[in-house]
Amino acid sequence: MNILIKFKKTVIPNRKEQEQLKKIADFSINLVKKEATKYSEVNTIEFAGSYAKGTWLPKSQDIDIFVKFHENTNPEKFESIGKKIGFDSLKKFKPYVRYSEHPYVEAFVKGKRVNVVPCYDVKSGNWKSAADRSPFHTKFILNSLDQSHKNEVRMLKKFLIDNDLYGAEIAKQAFSGYVAEVLILYYGSFLKVIKAAANFRWNQIIGKATKKFDTPLVIIDPIDSNRNLGTAVSIENIGRLVLLSRAFLKKPSLFFKPKKPSKKNLENTLVLTFGYKKRSPDVIWGQLKRSASALTKQLNLAGFNVLRSQVVTDEISNAALIFLLQSIKIEKRMVRKGPDFFRSKDSDKFISKNNKKSIVMWIGDGGRILSLQNRLENDAVGFLRNILKNKIKTSGVSNGLLPDFKKGFKIQYGKQVKNKFIKKAIQALASTDEYTFYSS
Amino acid sequence: MNILIKFKKTVIPNRKEQEQLKKIADFSINLVKKEATKYSEVNTIEFAGSYAKGTWLPKSQDIDIFVKFHENTNPEKFESIGKKIGFDSLKKFKPYVRYSEHPYVEAFVKGKRVNVVPCYDVKSGNWKSAADRSPFHTKFILNSLDQSHKNEVRMLKKFLIDNDLYGAEIAKQAFSGYVAEVLILYYGSFLKVIKAAANFRWNQIIGKATKKFDTPLVIIDPIDSNRNLGTAVSIENIGRLVLLSRAFLKKPSLFFKPKKPSKKNLENTLVLTFGYKKRSPDVIWGQLKRSASALTKQLNLAGFNVLRSQVVTDEISNAALIFLLQSIKIEKRMVRKGPDFFRSKDSDKFISKNNKKSIVMWIGDGGRILSLQNRLENDAVGFLRNILKNKIKTSGVSNGLLPDFKKGFKIQYGKQVKNKFIKKAIQALASTDEYTFYSS
Repeated sequence: MNILIKFKKTVIPNRKEQEQLKKIADFSINLVKKEATKYSEVNTIEFAGSYAKGTWLPKSQDIDIFVKFHENTNPEKFESIGKKIGFDSLKKFKPYVRYSEHPYVEAFVKGKRVNVVPCYDVKSGNWKSAADRSPFHTKFILNSLDQSHKNEVRMLKKFLIDNDLYGAEIAKQAFSGYVAEVLILYYGSFLKVIKAAANFRWNQIIGKATKKFDTPLVIIDPIDSNRNLGTAVSIENIGRLVLLSRAFLKKPSLFFKPKKPSKKNLENTLVLTFGYKKRSPDVIWGQLKRSASALTKQLNLAGFNVLRSQVVTDEISNAALIFLLQSIKIEKRMVRKGPDFFRSKDSDKFISKNNKKSIVMWIGDGGRILSLQNRLENDAVGFLRNILKNKIKTSGVSNGLLPDFKKGFKIQYGKQVKNKFIKKAIQALASTDEYTFYSS
Repeated sequence: MNILIKFKKTVIPNRKEQEQLKKIADFSINLVKKEATKYSEVNTIEFAGSYAKGTWLPKSQDIDIFVKFHENTNPEKFESIGKKIGFDSLKKFKPYVRYSEHPYVEAFVKGKRVNVVPCYDVKSGNWKSAADRSPFHTKFILNSLDQSHKNEVRMLKKFLIDNDLYGAEIAKQAFSGYVAEVLILYYGSFLKVIKAAANFRWNQIIGKATKKFDTPLVIIDPIDSNRNLGTAVSIENIGRLVLLSRAFLKKPSLFFKPKKPSKKNLENTLVLTFGYKKRSPDVIWGQLKRSASALTKQLNLAGFNVLRSQVVTDEISNAALIFLLQSIKIEKRMVRKGPDFFRSKDSDKFISKNNKKSIVMWIGDGGRILSLQNRLENDAVGFLRNILKNKIKTSGVSNGLLPDFKKGFKIQYGKQVKNKFIKKAIQALASTDEYTFYSS
């Protein structure tokens, strides 16, 4: 395909970009090495991630520098020295702490993002921190991919990024850079990955599994056959990759088009916005996702049909839970189902409890006693407000968010929202991704 | 219970009534006998039913006279001679034909209803017409019930009548007089029947079953152990007997109160009225019931929630199907569920078919492709009218009613209906029977 040759050109950084990044990377790692020599706990310093592997994309700014600690270092020292090395080495560049299971330090050095990440220097499989696998991934990919394959990885990563399918973190639940590398290794090229994805079956297995994994897509980590990288990917994102791949094969130019904005912003969107005290991204995303799923359950139980939900946060202090409902207002009446009349005690109980509330009570086709009643609440806004004000402790909303909700929250319809990043999320939720649902 | 003694007094006809009915019965049977001697096909004439058995109630008017034909009589002669004997013997009393599987003749003789019913004079078990069992039932009950038990039958029948639970015909699907007799025989008294009914279990068996019957209540016919009299009773009516029995045991005076009229006539009732060409009651009731059930299915498939339905007819020319809905108007939008995205061909088909109709299309939690769409019709009146005008042939509506519907029909809301007997049925459908759902 001609389009692929054109595409490949756009994903390979030019010589100038490569030299520039190398310069900053070398400069940064030297700063880190200098600081690290002060600590006997540190064994070695090395690059990891896409810079080290040579799978980074033009305009990408990430340089990952891993500080490998002796495996006997206790966790407190590991964290404190890790942070100190990061801060001291990058002190001229306004460093700050970020968290992903454990803290690391980030700064922008001459325009490029540099991450100084502590990990343990362990043998493969003896993982002590979540970052320990990274150097092994780097080594494995460097040994397995030649330049041509690296460029195929770049194409796949660009395809995933452009279609909002990139990132294994909980906020995204999509495909990581490492997964892109594993897929290219397994299938051989970008086009072969696309062809394979178009034909994925339920419980598709990529790699050699040592045990049974029950996810829709199983991607075995080549350096740890007990690990399924597919666990991190939501079924929606697997589905989007599959459908986009089919669309791409039908019309290969497709993904070069920019994403069309939503034509119609649905009126049936309910938005709960609130401020929160800053915490690590992984923590707040987890809390938001759990809370959205709990409130979805409550809304559904009350008769509101939640079609889709989404959470967003600026990762600083603002967050929103967004619910696309079939209707904000539902029917005033509902049917409460009682036991069948043969169950004497339960029937008595149901009748005496519901007799006065019933508009009509009768025996249904299956012999169950049924009661038509007015709902306590048929408006989703009122229902949600009541839960958050009076029943939040038993609602399933993440405990970590309770203090934030106590300080205040706002419930709005989708079209009332002014905040840009929330508005964007509402638009995405309430519109069809025309590339995913491409029809020739 | 004192109340039972009082009750019993009200159900036993006094001497005067008994003598009066006997006089009319003897007079009528002599007329029939005189006519019947003209036909060699007739073996004998005898009383059957509640008059013969002595289980009739005060103010009851039914005298059943059975004309027993030689079993070799061909069906045409059986019908024509049967009708002729009835007409000729009762010619002074404006006789007319009625149907219940085969024709019989009815007339009011001095204020009492007299039925002249042909049947075959067969051995037990060799039934040729539906009426053949009756003389055996009569004989069996006369041999099994003494005067005291007959009075208990009268109490049970009165209880069933007062609570609208009497009649095995398809219009009622409740308890026949014969079932009342069988229940008294089996349990011993009215109160014992009530106590038993209060504790009925699913698939309760009354009598000795020779095979498995899969109805909620199994009542074996004592003269034919292959016959389950429970088949004729709807689960709603079984449930009402069970609940009324429990209520009666808690507060025995209960059933003497008149039935309270519905407090509130629900606005969510949809009524389809039409005229029809006269036919036998069994036929029209069957057609109405089948049609109501088919239209209920269509309404439910379209998203309208039918809570209860009822059919009524004056058995002459007017009929109505009544539907109690959760709402006449439902939400404008609905979710259409597609296949899961793994099924490549089906997904393609679903996407291309539904893409333009979709307000939003997305991948659901289970991997299925979902599409939010506007309904073609969200008003039950419009929906029903469309079915009856354009899709009646594939709607499941009984073929027998199609010519009647072609001549015209009317769709109304419950409160628009003026006709008294339909109005009464709507009230019953849209209100709670307070005796059935009694709570102390």
